[in-house]
Amino acid sequence: MQRKVLITDCADAPGLITKITRVCFEHGLNITKNSEFVDHAHGRFFMRTELEGSFEEELLLNKLQSVLPEKNHTKLVDAGKKRIVIMVTKEAHCLGDILIKSYSGALNVEIAAVIGNYDTLKPLVEKFDIPFHGISHQELSRSEHEEAMQKAITAYDPDYIVLAKYMRILTPEFVRQYQSKMINIHHSFLPAFVGAAPYKQAWERGVKIIGATAHFVTDSLDEGPIIKQDVIPVDHSFSAEELVRCGRDVEKSVLSKALHLVINEEVIVYGNKTVVF
Amino acid sequence: MQRKVLITDCADAPGLITKITRVCFEHGLNITKNSEFVDHAHGRFFMRTELEGSFEEELLLNKLQSVLPEKNHTKLVDAGKKRIVIMVTKEAHCLGDILIKSYSGALNVEIAAVIGNYDTLKPLVEKFDIPFHGISHQELSRSEHEEAMQKAITAYDPDYIVLAKYMRILTPEFVRQYQSKMINIHHSFLPAFVGAAPYKQAWERGVKIIGATAHFVTDSLDEGPIIKQDVIPVDHSFSAEELVRCGRDVEKSVLSKALHLVINEEVIVYGNKTVVF
Amino acid sequence: MQRKVLITDCADAPGLITKITRVCFEHGLNITKNSEFVDHAHGRFFMRTELEGSFEEELLLNKLQSVLPEKNHTKLVDAGKKRIVIMVTKEAHCLGDILIKSYSGALNVEIAAVIGNYDTLKPLVEKFDIPFHGISHQELSRSEHEEAMQKAITAYDPDYIVLAKYMRILTPEFVRQYQSKMINIHHSFLPAFVGAAPYKQAWERGVKIIGATAHFVTDSLDEGPIIKQDVIPVDHSFSAEELVRCGRDVEKSVLSKALHLVINEEVIVYGNKTVVF
Amino acid sequence: MQRKVLITDCADAPGLITKITRVCFEHGLNITKNSEFVDHAHGRFFMRTELEGSFEEELLLNKLQSVLPEKNHTKLVDAGKKRIVIMVTKEAHCLGDILIKSYSGALNVEIAAVIGNYDTLKPLVEKFDIPFHGISHQELSRSEHEEAMQKAITAYDPDYIVLAKYMRILTPEFVRQYQSKMINIHHSFLPAFVGAAPYKQAWERGVKIIGATAHFVTDSLDEGPIIKQDVIPVDHSFSAEELVRCGRDVEKSVLSKALHLVINEEVIVYGNKTVVF
Repeated sequence: MQRKVLITDCADAPGLITKITRVCFEHGLNITKNSEFVDHAHGRFFMRTELEGSFEEELLLNKLQSVLPEKNHTKLVDAGKKRIVIMVTKEAHCLGDILIKSYSGALNVEIAAVIGNYDTLKPLVEKFDIPFHGISHQELSRSEHEEAMQKAITAYDPDYIVLAKYMRILTPEFVRQYQSKMINIHHSFLPAFVGAAPYKQAWERGVKIIGATAHFVTDSLDEGPIIKQDVIPVDHSFSAEELVRCGRDVEKSVLSKALHLVINEEVIVYGNKTVVF
Repeated sequence: MQRKVLITDCADAPGLITKITRVCFEHGLNITKNSEFVDHAHGRFFMRTELEGSFEEELLLNKLQSVLPEKNHTKLVDAGKKRIVIMVTKEAHCLGDILIKSYSGALNVEIAAVIGNYDTLKPLVEKFDIPFHGISHQELSRSEHEEAMQKAITAYDPDYIVLAKYMRILTPEFVRQYQSKMINIHHSFLPAFVGAAPYKQAWERGVKIIGATAHFVTDSLDEGPIIKQDVIPVDHSFSAEELVRCGRDVEKSVLSKALHLVINEEVIVYGNKTVVF
Repeated sequence: MQRKVLITDCADAPGLITKITRVCFEHGLNITKNSEFVDHAHGRFFMRTELEGSFEEELLLNKLQSVLPEKNHTKLVDAGKKRIVIMVTKEAHCLGDILIKSYSGALNVEIAAVIGNYDTLKPLVEKFDIPFHGISHQELSRSEHEEAMQKAITAYDPDYIVLAKYMRILTPEFVRQYQSKMINIHHSFLPAFVGAAPYKQAWERGVKIIGATAHFVTDSLDEGPIIKQDVIPVDHSFSAEELVRCGRDVEKSVLSKALHLVINEEVIVYGNKTVVF
Repeated sequence: MQRKVLITDCADAPGLITKITRVCFEHGLNITKNSEFVDHAHGRFFMRTELEGSFEEELLLNKLQSVLPEKNHTKLVDAGKKRIVIMVTKEAHCLGDILIKSYSGALNVEIAAVIGNYDTLKPLVEKFDIPFHGISHQELSRSEHEEAMQKAITAYDPDYIVLAKYMRILTPEFVRQYQSKMINIHHSFLPAFVGAAPYKQAWERGVKIIGATAHFVTDSLDEGPIIKQDVIPVDHSFSAEELVRCGRDVEKSVLSKALHLVINEEVIVYGNKTVVF
């Protein structure tokens, strides 16, 4: 008995649920969980179907194509363990949380490697017998540096790349290779602060809430479809440093939760947004 | 064009989604939103289907019976305006919130009447041109009092009865008449406190969180299937009175949200729990 | 026995707490609650002292001046009932919440009047026997309109002006008259959205959190020292309209809490931020 | 220049703030942060004063005794690094979080040792070069087992003992030795569930919120003064296992935050509650 997840993403049309579930039923597959969503404003249909049984993949997908509207995005995926490469700079909180969760089985990932533009986190990574690649940006041009990282990533053929507080800007050329495969975490404030030292700016403004956003990376580093967000309350008595410390707790918690959703194939990207089932 | 909600609640079986949605499709009904849930531990299937089109109710329900397992609970309901009777004692916060939300169209209810065992809230209710029934418990036996209230309720034939801080214990005999139709709000603490003056007890214990739970009333007043819960943080500097004041804000907010869910037919009760779609 | 609140805001210096509390003690005043905060980055000292006893105000303030650094902001204020004027447009949620809380004693305000640039909310306001001034902007220039509103406000001599979803931009000239006396509520998103129809933009971006910020109004409408913020989780299944509906619940809750803090003299403004004791 | 924290806990009396801060001032100590709280219901005064300067401890404390009411609890403590012993069973989440936070400097503790009644977590602990003591309860009587643990604890002379999901009941005799020095984390539900398998019970009841409480251990394991609490929302779609998984995230986050507060000397215990400054 196998388990797979069928993701359907197509133009909305009458009878889609019936047609899709009937194909699964006729293939002897049991639906253990099903979720659907229609974006009426854009006339788009999304469905996530957890199936168990014996899969004849090609036959199933062909049959589905015959009942679905053209130009659909249909895929049959595994909600099992995913292979990830993590990119870091110097901060341990997000990396540490993923290491521990992976070690204890709380996050279903195989950490293939960690790439850092500094060596700061090498000792921590090696405690867990995971390869660490220090690829310093310091003697390299931006394109040479990104090329070196890309080569390292490619060698591990990961399902996802996780930017766990990787603090260098990546070029659109680099990130474009990892469409819907690269996940970033960054701090979020109400209101937002543009430019350097955002925690300092947030502190000067006296914000009462700080948060974090995990998102897929598109052309620019801090935008792209949002996967998960959360906030914590703060007050005037927090120094700028304490804001950073508390912000780290939210960042690691939001990144872990976003990863869990992505790994379980619970996230569908469309336009610049996500459906999270 | 009409809109209705089909609620299915039955033993789990293969092909249910296909069968149900096909019946809807064949009746020319369009599914605008669909949610389902399988409780695998108890082998139970739940589905909520928003439909639009022209309904031949009896025909549709008969057809559904022919494809569903026996002993199913299937119903076709309106997600439109509901008629409620509100029961109160002296506190204005929950009642006031429902009055304003109903007045401004934020909550899709017609408040048929308000029944109070004190007259305290009569002037507030009458500002909104809603009948207020003062039914004092003071000169009546418990059964006489409940009989008087039941008579008043029956005269208005409400869809739901809302206990908006009604502070008298109701007998199992009384509440049993309103199975899954009577909604209560009560404070909730971590840990829970049994007995009199719970806010005082919570304060003595120094709780850091206070909350509220909205639930359907079953035999006993403060139990029954939970619809909605929420909490707010508090600290040592809150007096017992301030805990009460903050607790009121959570209570009114949780009760309103629970009512919104119930009115929209998003809540299915089973066993002592709810599925909230 | 009287109760007052002493607010001290001055350059930090050694011994300030001793000096201030000793003056109070020597005047026979009992300190029932005391909170202080030093902003070390800016070398600034803030203290809020709840006092009870018999006050000789002038004597006390003179004595305090003799022990405090020059250019301090020291004031002795009443934490009792405040007089407010509310400005609205068409939305009832924030106004309704303040009306009910004021009516039931949950918010210690006297609502002197409500000013609307539309008449939509007049019937609601008049239920509570509060004067409503419809001052339409439609046949007036911006400065004529603001002059008319200013005249109406002045006639009531309020302690605070509350913008309870007043949806017209106010000129810097207008708001400058009400420094630290005008409170506004507005929606907040992560990330922030500039321009028209922010809820629509937030929905298109697929935000997972929406919030609200209550703040004092400075030169520009949506900035100024933050008093209170809160958020609620949302997801892809919310339509843009549902985001608005949920956003209203946060807005009214945050505005009420901010008002409560301001009325109790728990908020000190400095720079573009607040200390909230 | 040294930094210390002065904790005062005594009967309330007029002039206490003046008297205490004057003594500090006269000893040439600078107050960098001060917080006080009066529990008017019990007539008790609490103050936490961060001081910097050159300390003559005995002199200072003697001087303070001369101005304070009798039977006060006054102490001068270090808010610096604390030495802890962690007790565990098999679950890695709380332990792992403390290991990473200690390693990266996010939590100011020296983990002297970890004691487990199973060896499950030994490999994880040893990655961080920290001694692990496997003290199995299986061949020992309860008192022999507790004696062995006590001996191990005593050898490390810790400031605090942290029960990071230690799943055996400890006798009142054992915990009594660590009054206000032993910190426990446990799950919390609304409502509370007594007896075995609480997550299962919570799931059967369909709770919409799960939480965690960190507290000092008194005579009984799951009670005692609360330090920190938090919750997360859940719904009907969570299986009992998923409730456990999400509960773990709250547990580890609440325990870390509680530890941070205790280590910084921000928590004062009195009666069965805490003041958390």
